[in-house]
Amino acid sequence: MSEIPGREEIIVAHKKIAGYIHRTPVHTSKSLNELTGADLYFKCENMQRGGAFKARGAFNACLSLTKEELAKGVATHSSGNHATALSLAAKSLGTVAHIVMPSNSKKIKVNSVIAFGGNITFCEPNLQARESTLRKVIEQTGAVFIPPYDDYRIIQGQATAAKELLEEVPNLSNIIAPVGGGGLLAGTALSTHYFSNNATTYAAEPTGADDAYRSLQTGSIVPSVNPKTIADGLLTSLGEKNFPIIKQFVNSIITVEESEIISAMLLIWERLKIIVEPSSATVLAAVLKRKDLFAGKKTGLILSGGNVDLEEYFRT
Amino acid sequence: MSEIPGREEIIVAHKKIAGYIHRTPVHTSKSLNELTGADLYFKCENMQRGGAFKARGAFNACLSLTKEELAKGVATHSSGNHATALSLAAKSLGTVAHIVMPSNSKKIKVNSVIAFGGNITFCEPNLQARESTLRKVIEQTGAVFIPPYDDYRIIQGQATAAKELLEEVPNLSNIIAPVGGGGLLAGTALSTHYFSNNATTYAAEPTGADDAYRSLQTGSIVPSVNPKTIADGLLTSLGEKNFPIIKQFVNSIITVEESEIISAMLLIWERLKIIVEPSSATVLAAVLKRKDLFAGKKTGLILSGGNVDLEEYFRT
Repeated sequence: MSEIPGREEIIVAHKKIAGYIHRTPVHTSKSLNELTGADLYFKCENMQRGGAFKARGAFNACLSLTKEELAKGVATHSSGNHATALSLAAKSLGTVAHIVMPSNSKKIKVNSVIAFGGNITFCEPNLQARESTLRKVIEQTGAVFIPPYDDYRIIQGQATAAKELLEEVPNLSNIIAPVGGGGLLAGTALSTHYFSNNATTYAAEPTGADDAYRSLQTGSIVPSVNPKTIADGLLTSLGEKNFPIIKQFVNSIITVEESEIISAMLLIWERLKIIVEPSSATVLAAVLKRKDLFAGKKTGLILSGGNVDLEEYFRT
Repeated sequence: MSEIPGREEIIVAHKKIAGYIHRTPVHTSKSLNELTGADLYFKCENMQRGGAFKARGAFNACLSLTKEELAKGVATHSSGNHATALSLAAKSLGTVAHIVMPSNSKKIKVNSVIAFGGNITFCEPNLQARESTLRKVIEQTGAVFIPPYDDYRIIQGQATAAKELLEEVPNLSNIIAPVGGGGLLAGTALSTHYFSNNATTYAAEPTGADDAYRSLQTGSIVPSVNPKTIADGLLTSLGEKNFPIIKQFVNSIITVEESEIISAMLLIWERLKIIVEPSSATVLAAVLKRKDLFAGKKTGLILSGGNVDLEEYFRT
């Protein structure tokens, strides 16, 4: 498969994964509507299995393998939610996930991979070490590499979150998703294109990791170098398969400051009474920053995940 | 009305308030089931209007007034969720709530009363000042006093949370609710008695505010003197109308330590991805403490509210 995923492929992916993922709820808040002047619909992927949208892509990728491939296991390198999601998918499908994790990965991420039966190999915390260690693991095990975002099966899977949101609230004017590697954003943009009534897709990105913003400005992928943001799901560079989709189907990327992300996160915690991770909060921060774009409009916000290390924030 | 509320009265109350309150969701968590060995169903009153179950009783009490009474307004003294709930109910029903609040009330509570249009009179932070100030306000305005818990209309309203839970999960073996003044607990015990298939009602109470526990032990109301707990919704003494219901219909009260409450709260935040206040967390703390009582059993937990002053806990 080398073409941009079509409408039918996303429908098929959704049917394939439906029995394995949660159809997450859509929440609303009068007080956040008043605060933003918009009509907001929050798609709660923080309540997805494994605590993030990543389960959608991971299941779709694993379910696209042959029985023989699946039996050999799957593998990836990740320090974040993709590691958890792939471990979960592998366990649910009766196989094993080999996860290469940098030695400085957060304890909460390591623990959740372990909880889902993932087989961890630690490596030095740099991309070279991650890739060479992964190659070794794959050589030894014969496992199939499942990339975190630069993959059409992953993009199709992530697209199902916006598809569900549009099934619930069909007449949205805008949809906004965070952008890191671009799996969720590319999927969201495709679903918005195929399943909405001409809605516009926006993205939110931390100023401290604004490689996607700069990539759209310059027209070619600008790598993410030394990104600095509390939104730890949004540190990576855009994928090569993701960028053309984003270029074609995303209206614009709104960048937000760290303080805006933290304020928006606490607002979501306080008003919606749900836990989201900083990456998720970028979308509300963007709506608050650009009220002019969203005022009076039905707007869908993809809350990407809720895997926060609470002990980091919590003062006892 | 001087009798313990009957089955029909709770059904009527539920119909009366249904258009004004949220039918809150029931959440589950595989990992919390594994941790406790029980089969847990969390009734999310943190997502109730005003952020707590209190809206149920407040609406039922206000809707029980004549048009003439309602027009004169309602009044209460409260530093907590009842103040918010009564303000919300009054505003929704086109009248005004006069709220006497101690001068040391938390800013978040004061702000939410103001947000719902409540008319605040501040007083010295002691019961005498609260009661005398309330008397003056009522003399001046002619408003009707709506007590926070020692009132059958309030108990009927709070009973509807457990009624909804039992409609969703009819075959529960146990239901557990926190106990402060006893409005929620008495209501929960009555609904469990009337609408369940012989389920048992338990209560959870902080050791630092264990007046209800000691009241059940001695057989008469032991006042709450200098209670100390992070669970700020559970500081009050039992109501006189509440105690006989609790004595008759509650199996036992499980007391929990402060550290157990905080751990349980963080577990709920982390695993369910929802924000609950410390009072709510007592029920999970109790289930964790007395695994022997709940092992293998379908257990309903009433999460009473989610009004946490996040800035108090949050380390930025």
